[in-house]
Amino acid sequence: MSAKPVAYFGDTTLATAASYLAGVMTHAGIEFVYVPSNHCAKAVTVATERRLFVISDYPAANFPRALQRRVVSQVRRGAGLLMIGGWESFHGSDGHWADTPLGDILPVVISKSDDRVNCDQPALVVTASDHPIVEGLPWDDRTPTVGGINRFKPRARGRVLLEAMMFKAWRAGEDMVFALQSKVPMLVVGEHGRGRTAALATDVAPHWVGGLVDWGSRRVTAQAPRGEMIEVGQHYATFLTRLVEWTGSLNER
Amino acid sequence: MSAKPVAYFGDTTLATAASYLAGVMTHAGIEFVYVPSNHCAKAVTVATERRLFVISDYPAANFPRALQRRVVSQVRRGAGLLMIGGWESFHGSDGHWADTPLGDILPVVISKSDDRVNCDQPALVVTASDHPIVEGLPWDDRTPTVGGINRFKPRARGRVLLEAMMFKAWRAGEDMVFALQSKVPMLVVGEHGRGRTAALATDVAPHWVGGLVDWGSRRVTAQAPRGEMIEVGQHYATFLTRLVEWTGSLNER
Repeated sequence: MSAKPVAYFGDTTLATAASYLAGVMTHAGIEFVYVPSNHCAKAVTVATERRLFVISDYPAANFPRALQRRVVSQVRRGAGLLMIGGWESFHGSDGHWADTPLGDILPVVISKSDDRVNCDQPALVVTASDHPIVEGLPWDDRTPTVGGINRFKPRARGRVLLEAMMFKAWRAGEDMVFALQSKVPMLVVGEHGRGRTAALATDVAPHWVGGLVDWGSRRVTAQAPRGEMIEVGQHYATFLTRLVEWTGSLNER
Repeated sequence: MSAKPVAYFGDTTLATAASYLAGVMTHAGIEFVYVPSNHCAKAVTVATERRLFVISDYPAANFPRALQRRVVSQVRRGAGLLMIGGWESFHGSDGHWADTPLGDILPVVISKSDDRVNCDQPALVVTASDHPIVEGLPWDDRTPTVGGINRFKPRARGRVLLEAMMFKAWRAGEDMVFALQSKVPMLVVGEHGRGRTAALATDVAPHWVGGLVDWGSRRVTAQAPRGEMIEVGQHYATFLTRLVEWTGSLNER
């Protein structure tokens, strides 16, 4: 039996926030090992050869630097590294990934102070470049919302695939006025050695996932082993599947 | 020692979704007893004289009809009844509150089939009437988003205080186009005998709460006993506090 291709760290527990990405990966037939946010990363998890490491709402403090360096070395040899946003991702309130071995190989520069942007008004996700992760999805025709992001800066060699357009909205009589305030990076991809790297600014679980979790008119139900049942929009499931598959080069070896 | 004024049913557990409303009530000094969504309502909880019953993501199947009738009788004598939206509220996927003693005294008609509207595109909450619950908050100047609602119809004597404006949004070059699709009831209030009743279409916890949970520029942190710590926008905390205080007439006796 070969090792599971994906190691997924964070999003609290499988019974809570992690039920989303874990459910989608299960639905797509992608096998993974899972480490809850409050468990320390262990040598066995990162010594095993993986195709993709996913870090999502997992504090850097729980990932010993020596083990992070082993992941970096796997990425150099061809594994993927994906960081997904949240209050315990990038800097966040408790992520603290700036100046860490893993933070240093992401395609974005992580802030050294609280980088959270909570959106009480519309934030919409549009495409910035064509790419296999985003193509064929109705970003620009049925633009999905998100509820928040970690603010980061693309590195010189990072490629911005998605951006968030942040609006102010107010009422004017029977109408609503929408005024664009800013446009910020949402998904940036890059590489490190032979491996692919990706940074997604929003969370893939509530509450920051916003309307993205319900994106599309068809519903998909899924459930990871030991996870909660989820019911999501079909475009959300497709997007997450492609993000994981591309970053881990899962369909290419 | 007098009985706690509020009985709060639902929102999964205090460690999960219920940490929001429970945290806000704790922050406002409002005492409550709490019943998780998967626990059956018990006679002692509803026989005790309360000022307010809150039902939020709590399936009707867990609330025996005989006990619902005791709540109805308390409402007739002056207690409040508030139902808050979610997948286990109103009809939902698993609420099934139509044609129940409590459903029948709400100020809205509950659907007999799935009434969930998940919003992958912008849904914004605006005022429809002046009222102590909504006054003085920037609904129309900094209009907050929500992520979903239960669709219901106001009864003839129900008063609609808030509405949700549902938009389609798509990209046109560098701009985004927003087109209003519908306007639906968000908050309806009424009375039954001497008691006040209220129906809120959105959830007050993720994911349906949407941007409303982050409404405002100042953050409020709060934590109920045995609940998770929450960090929310100040206008969200004010709105929920007023909704509970008005419906339960908490400041008027």
